Amino acid sequence: MVQVAILGATGYTGCELMRLSLQHHRIKLVAVSSETFSGRPVEQLFPFLGDAAGLTLQALSELDKLGEADFVFSALPHGKSMNVVPRLLQQGKKVVDLSADFRLRSPDHYEEWYQKHTAPALLKEAVYGLSEIYRDRIRGAQLVANPGCYPTAALLALIPAVQSSLIDLGSITIDAKSGVSGAGRSPVLNSLFAEVNEGVKPYKIGKHQHTPEIEQELGLIARERIKLLFTPHLLPMNRGILITAYANLKTAITQKEVFDIYYTFYQNARFVRICPPGTAPSTQQVKGSNYCAIGIALDARTNRLILIAAIDNLLKGASGQAMQNMNIMAGLEEDSGITQLPLFP
Amino acid sequence: MVQVAILGATGYTGCELMRLSLQHHRIKLVAVSSETFSGRPVEQLFPFLGDAAGLTLQALSELDKLGEADFVFSALPHGKSMNVVPRLLQQGKKVVDLSADFRLRSPDHYEEWYQKHTAPALLKEAVYGLSEIYRDRIRGAQLVANPGCYPTAALLALIPAVQSSLIDLGSITIDAKSGVSGAGRSPVLNSLFAEVNEGVKPYKIGKHQHTPEIEQELGLIARERIKLLFTPHLLPMNRGILITAYANLKTAITQKEVFDIYYTFYQNARFVRICPPGTAPSTQQVKGSNYCAIGIALDARTNRLILIAAIDNLLKGASGQAMQNMNIMAGLEEDSGITQLPLFP
Amino acid sequence: MVQVAILGATGYTGCELMRLSLQHHRIKLVAVSSETFSGRPVEQLFPFLGDAAGLTLQALSELDKLGEADFVFSALPHGKSMNVVPRLLQQGKKVVDLSADFRLRSPDHYEEWYQKHTAPALLKEAVYGLSEIYRDRIRGAQLVANPGCYPTAALLALIPAVQSSLIDLGSITIDAKSGVSGAGRSPVLNSLFAEVNEGVKPYKIGKHQHTPEIEQELGLIARERIKLLFTPHLLPMNRGILITAYANLKTAITQKEVFDIYYTFYQNARFVRICPPGTAPSTQQVKGSNYCAIGIALDARTNRLILIAAIDNLLKGASGQAMQNMNIMAGLEEDSGITQLPLFP
Amino acid sequence: MVQVAILGATGYTGCELMRLSLQHHRIKLVAVSSETFSGRPVEQLFPFLGDAAGLTLQALSELDKLGEADFVFSALPHGKSMNVVPRLLQQGKKVVDLSADFRLRSPDHYEEWYQKHTAPALLKEAVYGLSEIYRDRIRGAQLVANPGCYPTAALLALIPAVQSSLIDLGSITIDAKSGVSGAGRSPVLNSLFAEVNEGVKPYKIGKHQHTPEIEQELGLIARERIKLLFTPHLLPMNRGILITAYANLKTAITQKEVFDIYYTFYQNARFVRICPPGTAPSTQQVKGSNYCAIGIALDARTNRLILIAAIDNLLKGASGQAMQNMNIMAGLEEDSGITQLPLFP
Repeated sequence: MVQVAILGATGYTGCELMRLSLQHHRIKLVAVSSETFSGRPVEQLFPFLGDAAGLTLQALSELDKLGEADFVFSALPHGKSMNVVPRLLQQGKKVVDLSADFRLRSPDHYEEWYQKHTAPALLKEAVYGLSEIYRDRIRGAQLVANPGCYPTAALLALIPAVQSSLIDLGSITIDAKSGVSGAGRSPVLNSLFAEVNEGVKPYKIGKHQHTPEIEQELGLIARERIKLLFTPHLLPMNRGILITAYANLKTAITQKEVFDIYYTFYQNARFVRICPPGTAPSTQQVKGSNYCAIGIALDARTNRLILIAAIDNLLKGASGQAMQNMNIMAGLEEDSGITQLPLFP
Repeated sequence: MVQVAILGATGYTGCELMRLSLQHHRIKLVAVSSETFSGRPVEQLFPFLGDAAGLTLQALSELDKLGEADFVFSALPHGKSMNVVPRLLQQGKKVVDLSADFRLRSPDHYEEWYQKHTAPALLKEAVYGLSEIYRDRIRGAQLVANPGCYPTAALLALIPAVQSSLIDLGSITIDAKSGVSGAGRSPVLNSLFAEVNEGVKPYKIGKHQHTPEIEQELGLIARERIKLLFTPHLLPMNRGILITAYANLKTAITQKEVFDIYYTFYQNARFVRICPPGTAPSTQQVKGSNYCAIGIALDARTNRLILIAAIDNLLKGASGQAMQNMNIMAGLEEDSGITQLPLFP
Repeated sequence: MVQVAILGATGYTGCELMRLSLQHHRIKLVAVSSETFSGRPVEQLFPFLGDAAGLTLQALSELDKLGEADFVFSALPHGKSMNVVPRLLQQGKKVVDLSADFRLRSPDHYEEWYQKHTAPALLKEAVYGLSEIYRDRIRGAQLVANPGCYPTAALLALIPAVQSSLIDLGSITIDAKSGVSGAGRSPVLNSLFAEVNEGVKPYKIGKHQHTPEIEQELGLIARERIKLLFTPHLLPMNRGILITAYANLKTAITQKEVFDIYYTFYQNARFVRICPPGTAPSTQQVKGSNYCAIGIALDARTNRLILIAAIDNLLKGASGQAMQNMNIMAGLEEDSGITQLPLFP
Repeated sequence: MVQVAILGATGYTGCELMRLSLQHHRIKLVAVSSETFSGRPVEQLFPFLGDAAGLTLQALSELDKLGEADFVFSALPHGKSMNVVPRLLQQGKKVVDLSADFRLRSPDHYEEWYQKHTAPALLKEAVYGLSEIYRDRIRGAQLVANPGCYPTAALLALIPAVQSSLIDLGSITIDAKSGVSGAGRSPVLNSLFAEVNEGVKPYKIGKHQHTPEIEQELGLIARERIKLLFTPHLLPMNRGILITAYANLKTAITQKEVFDIYYTFYQNARFVRICPPGTAPSTQQVKGSNYCAIGIALDARTNRLILIAAIDNLLKGASGQAMQNMNIMAGLEEDSGITQLPLFP
């Protein structure tokens, strides 16, 4: 049994990590942290878990069972994680960090989009945890930087096209749509039911902090600097991200050829589903699962390639992929504990 | 491996049966039927299942692999099931029927609330599949009548109180609230998104066909005829039923005594969770799981007992309980394939 | 033109009062208060209003145009309003108070369900603003206590039955369902989209502070003390309250007779709609309007009368009724500025 | 009083036309048609309207009061309207047609995207009813082709930029998000609550029939042929369209200069609101009103102009704009009967 601790367990990604850990046959959850709710039993705050956890939340400074943990999932907010993770690594623990703190390889980029980095040396060591792309490096990593929700969907949709040089790299526009759980569990006005329901709006147009993460990873594939436009929108639903990516085709290519590139690229990717030609994914068809559904369309009239990806933001977009990475790092089956089929409807 | 067939696989309960069967390690799904969509591969109609099923829908009359099935889940509409089930039983198959056709023990009641019964002899043979109450009889049954969604919630909430003679049997009022998937997957005006969203309404006040089912089962516990008022309401959500049952207390009793009765009654019920005193269940805390969460409140001002039960109508209220019954009938662990914790949020 | 000020303008009822005032042809909105957002222009915080208001929010202590106001709508929270209203009355202004502070006629009841009252002398003076019932007294009032959202719906449904002695007064149970805007605009965990969506739950069972308000008003009609059970539920929708009230019939009566009582009682009530026999109201059919739709059903099997009322909680349940009361107090047409038909869907 | 008839009154746009007509002080609604529900009183089918209409639905062939109508709103489906409108025009009536039948100026385009046109001669005569752009021509028109919901939002956002030659015309991508009422009131599987809720999906990628309408109108402004990519998405909400349009900037320009172009362009447009720099519209802030809110952003990193427009699809996107056009045609105030402020929340 892998002994696991979760830091920051009371946000939505933390909750999901608890749920997945408790359902995982090879994991024993030994410690959960929360600054806000320390001292409270898990089952009191989260009746959906029942008494399955049998744990009490503790402040980070008081975590008495952290020492037993082989693995730590850190679901702390960015800016906090980088102050905690170095110590965990020194203690020999393996860490999957769900914050943004170790995703960008350049401390300058991190400072530009977030704040000054306090552990810049770790940026080179951390492996970017997009499981389907970096599986081999994740296997040997001590620190995995779990990708952002939007980047996971955007990259899985775009990487094959970029790697095969199908699209004009200067023409990429990503229009993203997300459910509200992506905004976290903090009680803020903008996340209130009545402010969100029956509405849709864009936010942080061209300025969202996931932009450099997507650009970095596509740039590494393309081996050139990429700038793209990323515009997220907030939607009235709990879970789900759909990204619709637009780019100009660089060369004449048939629909069948594009599909073949994607089929080949993802032939060993258990959690990637390519939608049949003429169909497009919905977030409903991945909800509650670790799947990423990818749709592909060519528009001959405008010579564009349209790539769509749908994920559950709390699973493949966060805690599910974190579990997938932990499985890889621990030498377990990649899908252990995350085999659940989507919940429909 | 238990060989399983699903009749009427394309409604919401049918879909859920497919999902649960494909996730169950001791089940092999061998045949699925649909009159409307016969000839279509499952994965084409239900992309959320991916290619996990690998089956094509067939009309009942053409089901070529039904013969291999040991167990049949019939998710046919009421009125249809009673024409099909007798033949299945003659073929030696075990059947969990999710329609209303075998739930009422009296053909007269069935005719009063539904239509004339075509297989009245089977009504005595069928075991009412409220797993927590009739586990022993289900174990030996060939035909289990899976309870309705509302009755499952109402009965699990009320039976301990009735059995312990806590309440005035003439005073029971059940106010029920249901998500829309309970109305089925037929394309009808009243189930359209824009007709349901941002609205709540009662329907079939005092006339819902689940009324005699609840009365019958409570009457069997009480050993007297019971008449109660049952009023369902339609809510803008996909899944979930919450019932709020009101009754007059017959005797002076403390809150602690009532809770003790419920704790004792359900001590071996793995899927029943009693909410701590002072708290009440939400459908959110059972969504996507086979749990039933029960809340108990006493109102001293009016001398009422208030019992609340929350279930996922497609799981404990239909397909999950059907799977639980199949597990019991097949001698498997009662929770095989339905251990999933609720999906929150 | 009536000069109007709104205190506590940035909650949902305050917003709605601004919207209604700006649409009202006989009203000039001269001042709006907010402690949290003082100094901010209305249009910056509430883009849905555009520049129609042309006002800046001010703290109560700094309201420079309050002196010009003939009428004040106080949408301050209960406990705050009673400290502000006495001064307004001394200044000769007419006040519609939307808090609970002047609804209960007994200071003891107020203290039991809320807190100690600081202006108990005004409780006798205040007129309970259920427009359809107290129209004549509202006309001459200086202070109107605008009813709570739940009591408005419950009382409009129950009063005719109580007045006509149709029901056993000890048997009343009110099961209420409310959208989330009723919980206010404070950023609290329980009102977050992802905590509310896809869920339904009861709260404050038998303990909601609207209970004594309903009991008081029904008791005044019946001329005897009434105790009833009131259980509210939270639903995933923005607006709307549906109450389903259950009571035992005291005498044999036909459906037609009951309907005739209601038709007669509400023959001059422009905002009350009685649903035709056999139909029941939905909150969708009153959304965005000041209407109250009432449904009536008799259940012969259990000898119960079932009364259903649907309102928009922010209109007939709060700001719409406040405007209706202001119209009556100011000698305007009762429906001025609130004639809008419901928004469907 | 203008005498008005509505053809196809029982869809969502028809309902909205009834509601607006009944609230309009200068309109008398004299006849309403429906093939499906002929013979049924309006108030029976649409309780939200109460008895305000006092009309019975009639089949087109039996409309006995059509003769009295000066104006006809046709909310018939496309393909049907073009068979009915010619006769109405011959009878001297003025017509606002809400279908697509008279929007495209070329019969070939109509045939390519819809079907063969049966009244091609009228295409030249019809005036495209984008009120803010063609107000003068609408004033004298006998037949106005009311724009589609998506084109209304897209054109109001893009026309000023195209007219001022700000953007590369070959680079336009429109990503649109729509609530479900846009799909109409037909009972189809894809519009069921449980199929739509908690999901988002694109449809008709690059193939939506509103594409040629947008291209035509932008082409007329630009005086050159334009091809663009239009991708609509379906969202879980009743009302609202948000379009996010992306294009490459052709010249160096400051944010202030772009805003000035828009402020000037729309200075006399009572229903267009330009969001302040740094903010973006939400559909919530126009819901229930005839407003179009436009947001503008420049992304210097990628040299893109991003234009966002939010409308209520049933108001500015259909029936509200139809009323606005009728007002113009009838010489009434342009905003008569449609002054309502948005309903928030």
